[in-house]
Amino acid sequence: MTKLVTEDTGAFYQYYPRVAVVVTAQASGRANAMAAAWHTSISAEPPLYGVAISAKRFTYQLIAESKEFGINFLPFAKAELVASVGGSKGSEVDKFHRFNIAREKPVKTAVPILKAAYAAYECKLVDDRGYGDHRLLVGEIVAVHVLREALTPEETLDLAKVSPILYLGHDLYLTTSKDMTYLDRKVYGKR
Amino acid sequence: MTKLVTEDTGAFYQYYPRVAVVVTAQASGRANAMAAAWHTSISAEPPLYGVAISAKRFTYQLIAESKEFGINFLPFAKAELVASVGGSKGSEVDKFHRFNIAREKPVKTAVPILKAAYAAYECKLVDDRGYGDHRLLVGEIVAVHVLREALTPEETLDLAKVSPILYLGHDLYLTTSKDMTYLDRKVYGKR
Repeated sequence: MTKLVTEDTGAFYQYYPRVAVVVTAQASGRANAMAAAWHTSISAEPPLYGVAISAKRFTYQLIAESKEFGINFLPFAKAELVASVGGSKGSEVDKFHRFNIAREKPVKTAVPILKAAYAAYECKLVDDRGYGDHRLLVGEIVAVHVLREALTPEETLDLAKVSPILYLGHDLYLTTSKDMTYLDRKVYGKR
Repeated sequence: MTKLVTEDTGAFYQYYPRVAVVVTAQASGRANAMAAAWHTSISAEPPLYGVAISAKRFTYQLIAESKEFGINFLPFAKAELVASVGGSKGSEVDKFHRFNIAREKPVKTAVPILKAAYAAYECKLVDDRGYGDHRLLVGEIVAVHVLREALTPEETLDLAKVSPILYLGHDLYLTTSKDMTYLDRKVYGKR
């Protein structure tokens, strides 16, 4: 087993897999959807969610104008839709029309919510900051859309009901194992 | 199938699963390791990585002092170690000693690198910013440690060789499916 240590980070794909989401936005009568893997929760109270997007993206322009964005979580059966919105340009084509993407009504913003999503967040932009070749957009989650059946009573994803889309890089998609392990941190922290 | 729409975000666990990492830091002769799931790549060039940490954490204090942190990716077989460092306090116990955590030498920083990691990043802090109940720490990746065998020639994770740790929330851990699907975005974007 060889451990390579290098200062040449290259494309550094080691942090994958990550849940692939569809980021949505609208402004001035135009809407768009893009695929993203660089996203994370940042705060629980208030609930803040961040996503890194290139300023070159059409979606970024819409968010910068409207100060709102949506984060949509789709089941693995919809991975082709993620590839479709990931491989097309919203400045050139109306992706909702082209890919026949069904929408639901947002409640606190005007961002498109995908009907196929098992969960979606409506976010109001609270920060937009440049880091290297991307901008980090931080939004406060002002409404949650969730398929109740996708969650257990403890609010975690019910993997018997829904399979999330994991992205590995280089157009490779997978999902989770079905089995899981409970490791009580209170017990393991005292070993 | 009932879609719930709510402004009460609750604990909002819908964005899981996420790769669980061990964040490491040292300062003034003390070192620590903590578990984290709120992390993401933010920029490719320069390579920037972000992680959200509560300012209450001992690890945060070490990073604020040293301006450096490590991100360690462990195989699923080491999920118990993640639960152990996640369930104990670095201000009270030397976790490296308690849990017998083997380390490797860092090359560009002084952050602890875990021997069990299939990949690890040495990061120099470039931003530290408060968002709600957490702080977002952004670091430039200045060195990468990687088990060459864990990656394919295309630099993606080789899931036949390594199983990443996915965290689902509420002390539940799982890994990825073994099979994956290639969906060429250039093809799907033109459907």
